[in-house]
Amino acid sequence: MSTLTHPTIVDGWFREISHMWPGQAMTLKVDKILHHEKSKYQDVLIFDSTHYGRVLVLDNVIQCTERDEFSYQEMITHLAMFAHPEPKRVLVIGGGDGGVLREIVKHDCVEEATLVDIDEAVIRLSKEYLPGMSVGFEDKRCKVIVGDGFEYLKQHTDEYDVIITDSSDPDGPAESLFQASYFELLNASLKAGGIITTQGENPWLHMDWILPLRKACQSIFPVAEYAWTSIPTYPSGAMGFMVCGKDAGRDLKKPARTWTKEEEDKVFKYYSKEVHEAAFVLPKFAEVALR
Amino acid sequence: MSTLTHPTIVDGWFREISHMWPGQAMTLKVDKILHHEKSKYQDVLIFDSTHYGRVLVLDNVIQCTERDEFSYQEMITHLAMFAHPEPKRVLVIGGGDGGVLREIVKHDCVEEATLVDIDEAVIRLSKEYLPGMSVGFEDKRCKVIVGDGFEYLKQHTDEYDVIITDSSDPDGPAESLFQASYFELLNASLKAGGIITTQGENPWLHMDWILPLRKACQSIFPVAEYAWTSIPTYPSGAMGFMVCGKDAGRDLKKPARTWTKEEEDKVFKYYSKEVHEAAFVLPKFAEVALR
Repeated sequence: MSTLTHPTIVDGWFREISHMWPGQAMTLKVDKILHHEKSKYQDVLIFDSTHYGRVLVLDNVIQCTERDEFSYQEMITHLAMFAHPEPKRVLVIGGGDGGVLREIVKHDCVEEATLVDIDEAVIRLSKEYLPGMSVGFEDKRCKVIVGDGFEYLKQHTDEYDVIITDSSDPDGPAESLFQASYFELLNASLKAGGIITTQGENPWLHMDWILPLRKACQSIFPVAEYAWTSIPTYPSGAMGFMVCGKDAGRDLKKPARTWTKEEEDKVFKYYSKEVHEAAFVLPKFAEVALR
Repeated sequence: MSTLTHPTIVDGWFREISHMWPGQAMTLKVDKILHHEKSKYQDVLIFDSTHYGRVLVLDNVIQCTERDEFSYQEMITHLAMFAHPEPKRVLVIGGGDGGVLREIVKHDCVEEATLVDIDEAVIRLSKEYLPGMSVGFEDKRCKVIVGDGFEYLKQHTDEYDVIITDSSDPDGPAESLFQASYFELLNASLKAGGIITTQGENPWLHMDWILPLRKACQSIFPVAEYAWTSIPTYPSGAMGFMVCGKDAGRDLKKPARTWTKEEEDKVFKYYSKEVHEAAFVLPKFAEVALR
């Protein structure tokens, strides 16, 4: 029935070839291409894979698969949320698939969660094709704004307890979200004691990019840590996060709140108190580089 | 010059397609195929990749690349070695590339390290093509035996402080190294207080295979733990390990000995005391399954 094609899919396999990770490519077997469009900002591809469920691809890079997205969504969200003693107002920059919102509203203390994504196509298509993630939009506490996160922050200072930047890679519409000036805006938009996480690439691939980012964060925030998680369909099987806080006395490597094991078991597939702490333990080569 | 070809390499890319991880495949760009032979036991391919250095492939599955092999070699070795207070006699089953021997002899307390690999081709070709790993063979304390590890263990009881099984996947010549009877032999070959590690596949892919293995180990050893490490070129970007000990009172999750940070920095690229402990922290889905 479907006659859709896409240059990244050859002989029934999607190949994630990019100059950002030269010489390697994750490939997934495609069952059916569901949708392809050029949005105002990026190339958007959605396909059903044979073994990883539905897959969202932006500018030829895998953003999420139904099989392993929980690792990324839970970790980028809960590292910040649990490091904060009582996050009430939460902001998401990017995250148009809704997965981070889904995680935020698991915390009863949250009163308002606002999402600002620049590309309406991601929100629209996630609602149509990725119900497991876009379920996050349905909570009454959630508000969605289509717009530029950078500009939004300029207009909102001293407002948020937690801000999560769930962006694509720095090579595209998200480029401005990886600059020092962006982290200064994040800092200004946080209330006292506020905490941010941002997508932080992978120590196996991008230490030369992580080091200056960490340095910039350290010059802006009194606490600037780096964590990571295992996720099969991101390049080299892992994804890092910058985790920064305004309160010099708070150790972000330890949850400020914990739930019982029974509560955790009910709602998490990746995160736990122990996973939180272990996520900040980096392999020797990365730990040495980031000293 | 080279006219070598291999069915896994098409249009200059090696693709790791296997029924063991259906619907996904890591691909590496090939610079040059260096060697291909059918040994008595398996298909052996060695190529130079464009960005991962030299690559050893057995039966179409990546065994090691020069860029990331240190994660696997250090972790499978030092989780056992540091959990033991004074390992003097160490045995490696498999590990014909020499990488595990290279790690073992970093411990001055080691008096003898014996390696038993069934396939002479792996040892021979590693010495020719993988000097960074086969350097392990050069230490005077090392002894190499070409033979069947299963049979070797039957003839050596109560002899070793640490035994490391560095095998390929259970789908080939290493099949017998994943059965309960093999773990019984390991247990019998260990001295009091002895510790083993074995290759333990990946929780993202093979929980249905890890669960019975863990159960078998728990019925044989008083302590049977599961750890994992990040490694980009293994399927789904990670590799697990079974870590078992004869001493019911010893917590294998914590090193029994530690080195100073300066000593660690000199010889390790992945392992550290902190990495040791974090390696046993599993994502919620795996932790729940293994309870």
